[in-house]
Amino acid sequence: MAQKGDLLTFRPDIKVVDATVRDGGLVNDFYFSDDFVKNLYKANVKAGIDYMEFGYRADKEMFDEDKFGKWKFSSDDAIREIVGDNNTNLKLCIMADVGRCDYKEDIHEKSESPVDLIRIATYVNTMPMALDMIDDAYKKGYETTCNIMAISNAKESDIAAALEMLGKSPVDGIYIVDSYGSIFPEQIRRISEQYMEVGEKYNKFIGIHAHNNQQLAFANTIESCTQGVSYLDATMGGMGRGAGNCAMELLIGFLKNPKYKLYPVIKFVESNIVPLRNEGLEWGFDIPYMLTGHLNQHPRAAIAAMKEGRRDYSGFYKEIIDKD
Amino acid sequence: MAQKGDLLTFRPDIKVVDATVRDGGLVNDFYFSDDFVKNLYKANVKAGIDYMEFGYRADKEMFDEDKFGKWKFSSDDAIREIVGDNNTNLKLCIMADVGRCDYKEDIHEKSESPVDLIRIATYVNTMPMALDMIDDAYKKGYETTCNIMAISNAKESDIAAALEMLGKSPVDGIYIVDSYGSIFPEQIRRISEQYMEVGEKYNKFIGIHAHNNQQLAFANTIESCTQGVSYLDATMGGMGRGAGNCAMELLIGFLKNPKYKLYPVIKFVESNIVPLRNEGLEWGFDIPYMLTGHLNQHPRAAIAAMKEGRRDYSGFYKEIIDKD
Repeated sequence: MAQKGDLLTFRPDIKVVDATVRDGGLVNDFYFSDDFVKNLYKANVKAGIDYMEFGYRADKEMFDEDKFGKWKFSSDDAIREIVGDNNTNLKLCIMADVGRCDYKEDIHEKSESPVDLIRIATYVNTMPMALDMIDDAYKKGYETTCNIMAISNAKESDIAAALEMLGKSPVDGIYIVDSYGSIFPEQIRRISEQYMEVGEKYNKFIGIHAHNNQQLAFANTIESCTQGVSYLDATMGGMGRGAGNCAMELLIGFLKNPKYKLYPVIKFVESNIVPLRNEGLEWGFDIPYMLTGHLNQHPRAAIAAMKEGRRDYSGFYKEIIDKD
Repeated sequence: MAQKGDLLTFRPDIKVVDATVRDGGLVNDFYFSDDFVKNLYKANVKAGIDYMEFGYRADKEMFDEDKFGKWKFSSDDAIREIVGDNNTNLKLCIMADVGRCDYKEDIHEKSESPVDLIRIATYVNTMPMALDMIDDAYKKGYETTCNIMAISNAKESDIAAALEMLGKSPVDGIYIVDSYGSIFPEQIRRISEQYMEVGEKYNKFIGIHAHNNQQLAFANTIESCTQGVSYLDATMGGMGRGAGNCAMELLIGFLKNPKYKLYPVIKFVESNIVPLRNEGLEWGFDIPYMLTGHLNQHPRAAIAAMKEGRRDYSGFYKEIIDKD
């Protein structure tokens, strides 16, 4: 596939999605202060970012409200407290996880909600439920995307089948997700081609959500972009589960559309992200995350090791290599 | 150019060069303990790494021996104290900087030295001196490579002329160097093609030395590799000036040649790199380095800001954007 765009012009189809509250919420159990979220909202507006993802809309029957901050549930009311009527160009989204969201009940008509886009996250083996969630959100009036997670551990034929199912659904966009941070740029280009073919056939845009276990989140994001992928997830300071995500400051530094501004992003990182690190929150590249990425494993063992303050990298390596 | 190699096989032409002492020495003025360097040497041998770079062979007339550790000068005797007769498969190299090395005097006959390879570092405007250094080292019996530094600020026509000069010289290999960490993967692939064409015409191998200002050191290294670049520089824990280099642990995790072993690298990082960080040495991705990379500037302003403990990222950004 020929390269889309170059380094001197810009592609107007590109949209940047700030996923700081949602993926970053996995670092602090969604306990962000209202100030943080309000500052983030303002920074996103100033920086010209296209979408801001609040958290999950998790099922309160399944998850204890006393054990998570409010962005685990991201009610319409909580979002309204931050954005008011959201008279800005910034669109809002939340994530709804297959099997962890009472979507029929908890996702209301679009006309009653400040949310523009429902991002449905699924594994390849739960596609029928994902399709029902897409239908439900579509009928309620939302834009929808579908994230197929953990594709590095899924069969290519299953991914192809899932993409065909999504192609025939009312979903607006389909996301490439490198859940384990295990995918290399030459692979992401091939995967992007595969997704783009389906996207072009069925008129869906393609997005990417990358993880930084091998310091490739930014590289994979911009490489998928060269293949035509247009919805690009990033987080302030790369804040996100384990090794974190594509850093917004890197992505906005790279993009050439004059509507994007780097300064408000740098300012937000300085004023709001650095304090979180100083309070002791940890994320970002480290050897345990690298090793789970290298071995194409879920990062949970690495997250547990880091939380325990373990720095016996070689011992950790022996443990996870010996697990199968 | 068609992709060289794939992710399931390996290319025997690939050589890994450990540059920890040389580029990492820029972090601590080359004050490594003998234990550190001996442990590094042993780890490199165990890991199957191809070359270990000691430091610079700097001119003692120009640089005060009391102000730098011994690896600023990397005498043959100092190297012999670490490696003895070096009865291993690990080859040894040092760097000789144009204008900062009394090469006629300080680089002895290969038969009298434990060093295998002299790496000559130059800017594009000092090529005649570099060529004299290449000739000198070649005639003394060494392998030679030439690093053309700061190419992101050089004219393409000048780079092309420099490559032709090197093509006609006795140099064995030519290095792509992203001194400012400002180059994106799609650019590194084009640059690699350009260098590979000269390499194929004149039978020179091509190498890469990347910096991590935009978290692209590893990505650019493996992307140049897909274009046929075969000498790959990396450092333990990514230790190197400013944002540091391609991390050896990432590179060895990526390469498929069974002679490379990840475990000794992880063990070395745990036992020898983490303690340096705990002592207060700083390197690796941070916003000031990102900003100089983004602006294609030398990292010196960022290094100074970080040394002063400045974390007013937005103030720093305004300063460096206002410099011209």
